Amino acid sequence: MAPKYELIYFNARGRAEGVRYIFALTGQDYTDSRYTNEEWQKIKNDIPSKQVPALKVDNQYIPQSNAIIRYLGKKFNLIGKTDMDAAIIDSAMGCADDIASGFIAMKFGGLNEEQTKAKAEKMKTEIVPKMLEYFEHALSADGFLTSTKALTIGELSTSLTIEWVQLFLPDFDLSKYPKTVKMLKNVVENPKIAAWIKKRPVTEH
Amino acid sequence: MAPKYELIYFNARGRAEGVRYIFALTGQDYTDSRYTNEEWQKIKNDIPSKQVPALKVDNQYIPQSNAIIRYLGKKFNLIGKTDMDAAIIDSAMGCADDIASGFIAMKFGGLNEEQTKAKAEKMKTEIVPKMLEYFEHALSADGFLTSTKALTIGELSTSLTIEWVQLFLPDFDLSKYPKTVKMLKNVVENPKIAAWIKKRPVTEH
Repeated sequence: MAPKYELIYFNARGRAEGVRYIFALTGQDYTDSRYTNEEWQKIKNDIPSKQVPALKVDNQYIPQSNAIIRYLGKKFNLIGKTDMDAAIIDSAMGCADDIASGFIAMKFGGLNEEQTKAKAEKMKTEIVPKMLEYFEHALSADGFLTSTKALTIGELSTSLTIEWVQLFLPDFDLSKYPKTVKMLKNVVENPKIAAWIKKRPVTEH
Repeated sequence: MAPKYELIYFNARGRAEGVRYIFALTGQDYTDSRYTNEEWQKIKNDIPSKQVPALKVDNQYIPQSNAIIRYLGKKFNLIGKTDMDAAIIDSAMGCADDIASGFIAMKFGGLNEEQTKAKAEKMKTEIVPKMLEYFEHALSADGFLTSTKALTIGELSTSLTIEWVQLFLPDFDLSKYPKTVKMLKNVVENPKIAAWIKKRPVTEH
């Protein structure tokens, strides 16, 4: 019997949307539990990691978004064919994490106005371009990370980080990175992902 | 024929030591290339990701420490037995990353003195305890992440983050987390790891 999946998070895309993309792409049933911060404070002691996102698989909890994404990626064959495919996917996800951590530090790191400006400038001129250059190296001309030419957890999850770039650095010129633009298109125009994007709850981030 | 491995990094433990632990534990030959910052500036354009650590496997580069660690973990059977084992290992590594990112923001995030103090306090009272509580949940009484009771990439790499806690929060009381202390002991007292620690170059961090 297939396990029962419950995704536990806030009512946001945030760190959970990559997991929801996997469920959308595979058509796997799951419970998409979205808590308010107040509700979360009441239930968090029931969850071993006291952090979200967490995936409940039958009675076992997996915390940490990338751990959840890799676990489901294996279950649903979304990690390419070879160990080197999986490594390149992992590298791309690691680069995306570095961008995401940078934005989180910029928005929620307790920086003053001047420091926030400096951090945004550093993201725009250093961190994001360095990572996107790697994506341009790793991606095929048609925007895939592996020779399977199918969406893997790599494209699904890094595409969301590219959306963070568009959200947090609205004047960043993404067109200089054509393979990355194609990757993003491959994800959001996939019929199953597009259907999910259309029906998902509208949230700020 | 076994592939040729070269690890490319600075003369530091930093983000590369988990990879070196894997090579030490398995006895796999590799080239441990350690560059000065000046040398690195000269060669970095030859490396697709323009970032270190990178592992060169024959002629292919894998950037991002955790991608390297997972790739070698698979090659050398250091990821437990089941997909859930691998997920728990990934979760622990994700938690360790959150601690590491916090310390990096604290030391190199351009914070002023007051902000650095506030960040250290937050690390000490919130971030680190939350993660260590999860480790105490995930680890067995004898300090292993999986039922194989053998070192995996999870113990190897998170033990190094625990050492960062000792380095950056020297008055943090780790004894409240006995399973974590055992995990650290399991790693550093493993004869092969201990031999490596004894012979490795002495570096500040």
